[in-house]
Order: sequence, then structure tokens, then C-alpha cells
Amino acid sequence: MTTQPHNHIVKSHDDERNRIIGEILRMGEMAAAQLEAALDVVARRDDKAAERIVANDEAIDTLEREISHDAMTLALRGPLARDLREILATLRIASDIERIGDYAANAAKRSIALNTSPPLPHTRGLHALGMLAVAQVRAVLAAYRDSDAEAAQQVRARDAELDAEYTGLFRELLTYMMEDARAITPCTHLLFMAKNLERIGDHATNIAENIWFLVHGDDNLPPREKRDETNTAS
Amino acid sequence: MTTQPHNHIVKSHDDERNRIIGEILRMGEMAAAQLEAALDVVARRDDKAAERIVANDEAIDTLEREISHDAMTLALRGPLARDLREILATLRIASDIERIGDYAANAAKRSIALNTSPPLPHTRGLHALGMLAVAQVRAVLAAYRDSDAEAAQQVRARDAELDAEYTGLFRELLTYMMEDARAITPCTHLLFMAKNLERIGDHATNIAENIWFLVHGDDNLPPREKRDETNTAS
Repeated sequence: MTTQPHNHIVKSHDDERNRIIGEILRMGEMAAAQLEAALDVVARRDDKAAERIVANDEAIDTLEREISHDAMTLALRGPLARDLREILATLRIASDIERIGDYAANAAKRSIALNTSPPLPHTRGLHALGMLAVAQVRAVLAAYRDSDAEAAQQVRARDAELDAEYTGLFRELLTYMMEDARAITPCTHLLFMAKNLERIGDHATNIAENIWFLVHGDDNLPPREKRDETNTAS
Repeated sequence: MTTQPHNHIVKSHDDERNRIIGEILRMGEMAAAQLEAALDVVARRDDKAAERIVANDEAIDTLEREISHDAMTLALRGPLARDLREILATLRIASDIERIGDYAANAAKRSIALNTSPPLPHTRGLHALGMLAVAQVRAVLAAYRDSDAEAAQQVRARDAELDAEYTGLFRELLTYMMEDARAITPCTHLLFMAKNLERIGDHATNIAENIWFLVHGDDNLPPREKRDETNTAS
């Protein structure tokens, strides 16, 4: 290793950079845990726990604001071109994680409404979809931790599975609503929850694309076919 | 006016700053126009026009990437503390406008699916909700142009109207679905479209909060009651 001039400054810059990466991973794990907890309260029909999840979302929002601030401060005192790419990607990744947290909190909130109706068999399908979303979030956080563009690319490719699962559940719910009018209100909540889980997959994909961008720059991202078919389902 | 040292550099920095503000306003107007066009194609049941709106969303996405890049580049060569607040707000506002564009494109996409079923009376209610959303977007862009925190605050307060309108439409659609099972599939599209319009209102509110932040700094934002009641409707 060659010793560079101002090595102590570069070192402290790198330390701060690593600290921010650590904070993003912590934020990501909070969002993943919120999502798992939300899926759990839906299954257990636990209103009190659902309210705690909704309240916990504030901590993720606060962390995003702190990370954005710290990443910008770091950019403003660091070397120009190298940081520009990294800071932009960092801000976007933090924002995507923040949205994942929002969707988790929203699932918890809707579970409270769901609990005023008798249990529906489709709640299990929702849980399966949600576990796929959790797996995608965890996989993309690991790819970020390891700066692994290949692993990120795999997360992006697997989003199609989540979309297929969502489309299946969406159609099942529609059929069920047609068979039993009393199921319409609770099924509507399940429809929105399923849509939010599908959107979490999209945010994991966004994070994957930003990892690719971090590692390889803005070009050469392989194309990917579009996903959720229910927008155009008739 | 006093002449300052390095005035030409400050001038060029301000020019670039004003150019970025102009680009954000242009991006915002594109999103508002996309939203109006989407509402129009829903009413006219025009699939071809809907496809054009979906394709046009790409231009907004591209503009957001350019603005983020330019805003960061400007921050990296500008005075530190003043810019930090402004750049963060700029990135967030650009991101909110980008999401508004996405929701407009999604409404256009869903209209194509809607056109495979006979027309529904509730499409008019959706249009009214959409026009409220357009008005909020235009009002918040004007507040941004004028750095008017008071006007931004009014946009934020008016979001409750949009939420009330959404909640009314949501309940109406549920009732209609219960009365006629054949309406369930098209009403589901209307439900998602209505939810997206309500979300556009939230993004206008986010922009309003960032304008407040730009003008007054991070503190003193007056509290505001939470909005969409359908998350917890049973």
C-alpha cells in the first residue's frame, strides 16, 4: 500500500463513508423487520402489535433524513466525480428503503381494518407474497453490503416471480369477491396490501439498479421485461 | 447594489441554480399535463392516447435524473451550508414530481383495461378527484416558483379535501361492487386509480413541506392531521 499525502483526511472520509453504508444497512434491516412483523400481525390478527408497527415507521423516516443529510455533507467535502455517483445512489437507496418501511406500516394499519371481518383464506396467499418480498429486500441489502452487482442483477430478475404471485392472488381475490359480496370490503384491503407488497418488490428492484449503477456506472444495465400485469387485466 | 469580489463566479452559480429551478418547474408542468391528459383519456375511453401518455412518462424520468445530477454537481462546487438544505429539497421535490408522473401514466394504463368493460357512472367522480389533484400540483409548483411558504402551507391544508373526496368515492365504489358482481373488475381499477390520485395529493403535500423547509429550515412546520381514512375503514 502506498502512503498518500493527506492520508489522514482520506481515511476519515472513508470512515464516514463506511459509517453511512452501515446506517443504510441498519435502516434496511429495520424496514425488513417491520415488513416481517406486519406479515405476522396480519396472520395473528393482533391490533395492538399492528399499532406498534405503524408507530415504529417514524424511526425509519428519521434515519432517512439523517442519512441524506450526512451523505450530502460528505459529498460537499469530498473529491468530486467519484462521490457524485455514490451520493446520488445513496440518497435513492435510502429513499427506496424509506418507502418499503411505509408499505410495511400500511400493511399493519390495514390489518386492523381486516380484523373487524371474519378471517379470509386468502390471508395465507398474502403471507406467501409478503415472504417473497422480505427475501428480495434482504437479498438486495446483502448485495449492497457486498457491492455485488451480479447478486443485485439476480434480485432484479427474481422480481418477475413476485409479480406472477401478485397477479395470481389479485385474480383469486377478484373471483372470491364475485362469489360473495360480503367479502368485498375485506378483500379490497387484501388487494391494496398485495399491491403494496408488489411495490416493495419494485423498490428492491430500484435498489438493485442503483447497486449496478454504483459498481458499473450509468450504462449497460441489461433490459428487463415489465411486470405487474394487473394494471391492464380486464 | 454592492459589487462583490468573484461576482462573476457567484453569478454563474446563481444562473445554474435558476436554470435548475426552471427545469423542476418544467418537469412539474409535464407531470401536471400528463395527469390532465390521463383524466381526459379515462373520460373519453381513448386507448391510443392512453398509450402515448404511458410512453411520455419516460421523458419525466429522464428529466429527474438530469436534474438530480445537475443539482449535485452544483452543490459540489458551491458554498457549503446554504446549498445543503437547498439541494436536498431539490432532489426530493424532483423525486415527488417523478412519482406524480408515474401515477398519471398508471391511470392512463388502467384506463385501457377499463375500456374493455361498459362505462361506469363513477368515472365522473374519479374525474372530479383527479381535477382536485391537478389543482394541488399546479398550486404547489407556483408556491415553489415564488418560494412562498404560506402558499405551500395552504396546499398542505387542502390535502384534507382531496382525502375526503377519495374516501367518499372509495365507499361509493364498494357499495356499487356489492350491488353488481359484474362491476367488481372495472371498479377495482377505479379503486386503484382513485388511490393513486390520493397519493398524488400526498406528493403535492411532500413538495409543500420541502418548500417550507427551503424557506424556514427544518423546524416549526405546523402539525397536520392524518388523511386517507380508508386504510382503516371496515
